[in-house]
Formats: sequence, structure tokens, C-alpha cells
Amino acid sequence: MEVVDLLIEARWIVPVDPAGVVLESHAVVINDGRIVAVVPQSEAASCFSARSHKRLEQHVLIPGLVNLHTHAAMTLLRGLADDLPLMEWLQRHVWPAEAQHVSEQFVYDGTLLACAEMLRGGITCFNDMYFFPGAAADAALASGMRAAIGLITVDFPSSYATDADDYLAKGLAARDQRLEEPLLSFCLAPHAPYTVGDGGFSRVLTLAEQVELPIHVHLHETIQEIEESVQRFGIRPIERLRRLGMLSPALIAVHAVHLDAHEIELLAQQGCSIAHCPSSNLKLASGIAPLAELAAKGINIGLGTDGAASNNRLDLLQEMRLAALLAKAQSGRADAIKAHQVLHMATLGGARALGLEARIGSITPGKAADLCAVALDEFALAPCYEPVSHLTYAVAREHVSAVWVAGRMLVENGQLIESNETGLIKLALLWQNKIRP
Amino acid sequence: MEVVDLLIEARWIVPVDPAGVVLESHAVVINDGRIVAVVPQSEAASCFSARSHKRLEQHVLIPGLVNLHTHAAMTLLRGLADDLPLMEWLQRHVWPAEAQHVSEQFVYDGTLLACAEMLRGGITCFNDMYFFPGAAADAALASGMRAAIGLITVDFPSSYATDADDYLAKGLAARDQRLEEPLLSFCLAPHAPYTVGDGGFSRVLTLAEQVELPIHVHLHETIQEIEESVQRFGIRPIERLRRLGMLSPALIAVHAVHLDAHEIELLAQQGCSIAHCPSSNLKLASGIAPLAELAAKGINIGLGTDGAASNNRLDLLQEMRLAALLAKAQSGRADAIKAHQVLHMATLGGARALGLEARIGSITPGKAADLCAVALDEFALAPCYEPVSHLTYAVAREHVSAVWVAGRMLVENGQLIESNETGLIKLALLWQNKIRP
Repeated sequence: MEVVDLLIEARWIVPVDPAGVVLESHAVVINDGRIVAVVPQSEAASCFSARSHKRLEQHVLIPGLVNLHTHAAMTLLRGLADDLPLMEWLQRHVWPAEAQHVSEQFVYDGTLLACAEMLRGGITCFNDMYFFPGAAADAALASGMRAAIGLITVDFPSSYATDADDYLAKGLAARDQRLEEPLLSFCLAPHAPYTVGDGGFSRVLTLAEQVELPIHVHLHETIQEIEESVQRFGIRPIERLRRLGMLSPALIAVHAVHLDAHEIELLAQQGCSIAHCPSSNLKLASGIAPLAELAAKGINIGLGTDGAASNNRLDLLQEMRLAALLAKAQSGRADAIKAHQVLHMATLGGARALGLEARIGSITPGKAADLCAVALDEFALAPCYEPVSHLTYAVAREHVSAVWVAGRMLVENGQLIESNETGLIKLALLWQNKIRP
Repeated sequence: MEVVDLLIEARWIVPVDPAGVVLESHAVVINDGRIVAVVPQSEAASCFSARSHKRLEQHVLIPGLVNLHTHAAMTLLRGLADDLPLMEWLQRHVWPAEAQHVSEQFVYDGTLLACAEMLRGGITCFNDMYFFPGAAADAALASGMRAAIGLITVDFPSSYATDADDYLAKGLAARDQRLEEPLLSFCLAPHAPYTVGDGGFSRVLTLAEQVELPIHVHLHETIQEIEESVQRFGIRPIERLRRLGMLSPALIAVHAVHLDAHEIELLAQQGCSIAHCPSSNLKLASGIAPLAELAAKGINIGLGTDGAASNNRLDLLQEMRLAALLAKAQSGRADAIKAHQVLHMATLGGARALGLEARIGSITPGKAADLCAVALDEFALAPCYEPVSHLTYAVAREHVSAVWVAGRMLVENGQLIESNETGLIKLALLWQNKIRP
């Protein structure tokens, strides 16, 4: 009998890899934060002696969800000014509030709040892009959560940095101080084609190759972005990035709403990933990304919540449902994107985009024990003919009952174990009173 | 001091009528199931002595939600066969399951399950269309819920009835037996243009005028429906109904996804209502209704979940969020449909479509005390700059904390008071084992 830390027995386990599989009455064996085995419960009982034991009688166990695009700290601006035209929202509300309030403390507090929300909703890893990335990293670590921290670059000054070089230098320094943290990884995060010049992109590209980091960038989010690029550079943003040599498996194109056939082909050929953010694309009236077509071309796709100012929930189960539903209407085919596919996007697709597919994204021996248990024993989920279909179309995040990151349990019975929920609300109210006195 | 049954004090009250108003620190005074007054808390304390008292410190109190279109009993087929092409789904799964299993007991049990789900999610009234409407009515009454029961008619036989005359006769008999029930109202429910002939529609129209009932019909849901009508009748379904004299304020057009400018004008002129079902329209790949345009024309709009087989949640807060988000992307304007507007649709719009606007749909003295309290004191909803914006974009049904129908409390602390949740799950499992042994 091999002695291990933890044995989780679940009614259903969906490992995601291999695709489409639902294991019944299996167990996940965990030691030292890693998955040791995924075996039938009888075999687990005879081969392993576990220090700790969790029985999930009516649950489906899935890999922890990977939120491939967010601005976590923007929780503090959640619902600040909804239902406004995009430019009025940005110019009269979001940007002034950011200019006045964003600081190291703002980012730490806002990210802490975001981590609590994400964790309790089954998200175990998020890909962030915001000012003061060191503060975001520290909040993620304090929450016990895995994070890919974006080293943001824009051409304009902020309370955080002055110019592209300053942003990059500060980002790299924040990374250097936290290189040994096993839960952290990093991306270079040039904000968008309309906020970063060719010089900034070139510097990002050089760095990305030197330190082997993914590149996280907003791309083809709106028609205006594309038109502006054509006016300013004579070409569309994707073509511009292609000429700069940036299209590669390291690229995470966020939104990718407006694409012509050639651009889809190009993203597929170059092995780029897409962070699909359906709620945000709707709320900001950006449009509906051609998800079924992107998937048919074999492009790697992850899902993102975007920031709480444009969603207003950091809820990847919501994005799974919406991604599947929208793809059906958009393609005119009710079988266009299926439940197993959006679960793949929300887990292994996101992990692969971040270069973390060897470490997370599926329930596979050798990978980190980042796990999410969803309780299906509820009358609003009854009957249950197919658990993955339920996960996508019927479940919501209140059904998430337990969450582990690297084998450490952070949510139990739907409650955060280590966070002080009342404290988080007080923290949010403190900022609310500052931002809108 | 006037003695009354119940006084509810809430941090925020959104009466819906007048539109756009948010009352702070007000109270709703209730007696004999009706709203007596909506006044500042200080005034309530000095004018009324209440037998029962409810303080909602961090809640927003809204009218109970009205689900303007569902097939409640189809909860028993929830997720039976998702992600399939529409005709395969209908012909190989839903219709065979219905043919084999639908009975008075199926409808009673399925509707009971649906009522529990709807009530706990803040829905106090639903507009139903299904076989055995008497059984649905009884389940609604057993749940304490308000319901508009559709007297269904189709041209083909089922386990319930043989032909259009038989359907109508049975429907009217079911209504006659329950005419004195204060929580019940009725609609005539000719299923759809492709399942009801001109003779059936004419009979429905005559009856609707005689007994003054609304008419609840699927209309312009899919392109195929319209094409088939053009082939068979030489005209589109709305034109066909117009010629039959059916376009009037009594008509509730369900889905109304595919409409040309002339048809929108016609629905507006004739005072028809639309039951907008965004999740279902996406899931069945029907399309996206032009909500912003319909609202701009002043058409009365309510929201519907449709049945659990095509959603798979009977969750009107979800439909509010989706209706607002989709309208923004579809119209290309982030300010297209606002939070207050979708709340109106989910309450007073639905009530008006059902001819119940004098009795429910807003927090107005004289109306029934159908109310829903939503708790906003949660870290995933913090900060909170604007409660109605939160209701639409951040809240989910797990935040519904209390629900009253005609002054009777049916949900408290997010739990059904009178239903046996374990019993409901067992009931659903019993049917699951019959339907897919």
C-alpha cells in the first residue's frame, strides 16, 4: 500500500484529457500537490492508503477552471457605470477612476477580491493584465491561487510607469522577485494594437523569445480598432502583428471577435491561441466571435471573463454556457459547439495557451492537483441524464462545492476556507466610498 | 395606527412603476395579500402596526418575476439530449420521450419540480403551455405559485387529446373546474403556425373573444417555420395570423426572432406582446431577436425561460442578463437595452402580456404582494454602485433570499419553506429511471 496525502472519490470524474470521457466511480489519488493516479475506486482502496479522504457522492470532479483573460483588480469598479456607450464609459468613468485611484494597494485589494470570487466559482488559475502586476501576484499568492501575471506595456504613462521601457523594466523586476513561486507564471502583456506602437511590440517580442514567455494581447476586439489600424498603419492589426513576427504559439489573442477567413487561417497556421470572452464581447457591444469556425480550424481556444467592469461576474461557468449557446445561434447549428468542447476550452485550452499544459488543465497523473468539485444533488439540476451537459447548461457557480489548488483545499461546502468574507466586503466598501464618495 | 399583516423594510425597493425609480430605506406595507402602501420607513413605523415584520438590511426588493413562456413539466426532460441538430433532437429524443411518458402524473410531477425551481429563483408567476393543463394548474396551486395556464391546441393527437376540438374542450373543462382559484389565470395556447391549421386558429380566436383570454403562441421562432409557411400558405406566419384577425393586444407572440420591418410595425400597431426567450433562441440555434428595435417601437416585451429541455434553467435572472447583453451586441450599441428595461420586461411587461397588469408586475398599492428580495451583501457582488445594474449583470438566482406570492412567504433565506427538496429529487430520479432506464 502506497501512502499518499489525499484520495478523492467522485461519482463522476471528467479528466478532459482524453477528450469526451466521463469516468464513473473513480478516484483521484494525490500526493505532494500532484495527481498520482486516476483509478477505479476499488483499485484505489487496495493500492493506496490516504492520510485524508474526500467522498463526493453526487458530484462531478473536473480540472480547476483556467480564466484566460481578466483584469482582476477591476472588481473594485464592478458596475461603476453600466449601459453607456463604449467611449463614454471609458473616457468619462473607467479611465478617470483608474487615473485617480489605481495604486499598488488598489491592485492588491481588488485582486484579492477577484481571487476569492474566482476560487469559489471553481477557477484555480487566471491570466491577468493590469497595472502593478507585482501587487496582483502577491494577492494571488495570498489567496493560494495559481496565476499567470501579465507584464503590462502601454505607450502612455500611468501611476505605475512612464513609457514602454519603464513598464517592461518594472514588469521584469516584479517577475524576478517572484521567480521561485511555484504557483506563478508570467506573460508579456502589450495591451492592444491601439495602445502599443511597433517599437513596443518589437521589444516585447525580443523579450518573449529571450525569457520564453507567452504574449497576452487584446486583438481584433472591435471594428473601430480595426478601422483605426487601417487608417494609421494601412493594415489590419493581425497583419501588423504578422509583419512584426508576433504570430506564433506564444500569442494569446484576446477577444478575436472580427476576423476574416484569411485571418482565421493565419491564426490557425501560426498556432496562436484565442481567449474567447463572450460576456464582455456582448456587454461592450463588440460583437460575437465566430467560435464554431475557429474551433473547426483547430485553433486552441480558452475562455476569459475579462474584468468585472465589463462582465460583471468573474464566472467561468457562465462563460462556458454562453460560449456554447452563442456559437449555436451564430453558426445556425444546434450541434455547433458541444458541452465537452467548452469544458476543454475552460481548462486544457486555457492551460495550453499559457504554456502550462504539462502542469495543469486536465486530471492526469503527474499534473498538479488543481481540481473543482461540482455538486449535482440539487432539485434544480434534477434529473441528470449527462453530467457534462449539466455542467454547461444547468449548473451555475453556486454548485461548486470544493476546490483544490496544487492539492490544497481552498473551498469546502461552497465556502472559502481561508478568506474572511466579511473582511472582503468591508475592503470593497472602503474603495467604493473612495471612488464614489 | 392601522393594523396590517406584514411590513417589509428594505435597503432598496425598485417598484418598476414608476420606471427607473430606486427607493432607499422604504417599506412595503402588506395586508390580506395585497400591497397597502410603499412609504419611507419612518412613516411606516408611525402609521402601521404590523403582525409580522421583515427587515432586509442589504437587499433590493423587486416585484416577483413573471416567466412569460415555459413548458414547466419538461423539467423531467432537462438535458436529455443536448448539442444535437434541432430535428434530430425533436424527432429522435423529445417527441418519442413525450409520446411514451407524458401523462397527467408526468405533468403534475414535472410542474411541481419546475415551480420549486422557479420560486426559489424569484419567479412568482409563470405562463405555461403543455399537455394536461389541469395537472399543471394543480401543481402550481400545490406550490402556492401564481400561474397563467395555457389551454393547448395542436392539430395532431397525443395521450392528452385527439384533435383541435378535443384539446379545446378539455382545456375549457380544466379551466371551468378552477375558475375560483385566485392565483390562476388562463390563456388559449394554439401551439404554433406549423401545428395548428386555420380552422384551429379561428376557433381559438372566437373563444378568446368570448371568454376574454390572451392567446399564447410560438411565432417566427425559426427561419424554417417561416419558409414552410410560405410554401404551404403562400404567406409568412404573422401575415397569416393577421388575415385571421389574430393580431391584437391579446396576442403573446413567443420568440419572434425573425421579423422584417413591416412585421415589427404590425406587431407594434396591433398592440401585441412578445415573449422573448434568449437562452432558448440561442440553444436551438434559432437566432437572436432584434430586441432593441422591438423596444424602440414600444412593443410590450416579457421574458421567458422556455422549457427546461431547451434552456436548461428556469432562471429569469439569467434571461434578464442575457437579454440585455445580447441586445447590445446585436444592435452594436452598449447602451441599447438597459438594466431597468430588462427588469421591466421580467415583471410588468410579462404581467401586461397576460392581462394581469392591474394585479401584479410592480410594487404598487392595490396590487398583490408578489415580491422577491435579493441579497446584495456578498463579496462577489461587492462593491455595489447601482443595485439595478447589479441585479442584471452581477446577481444570480442564488442571491434570491425571500419570495412572497400574494403576501405568503414561500422562500426564506434562499430555501423553499414548504417544499420537500429531497422529495423533489427522488421524484425526478424516478422519472429519469423510467425515461432512460
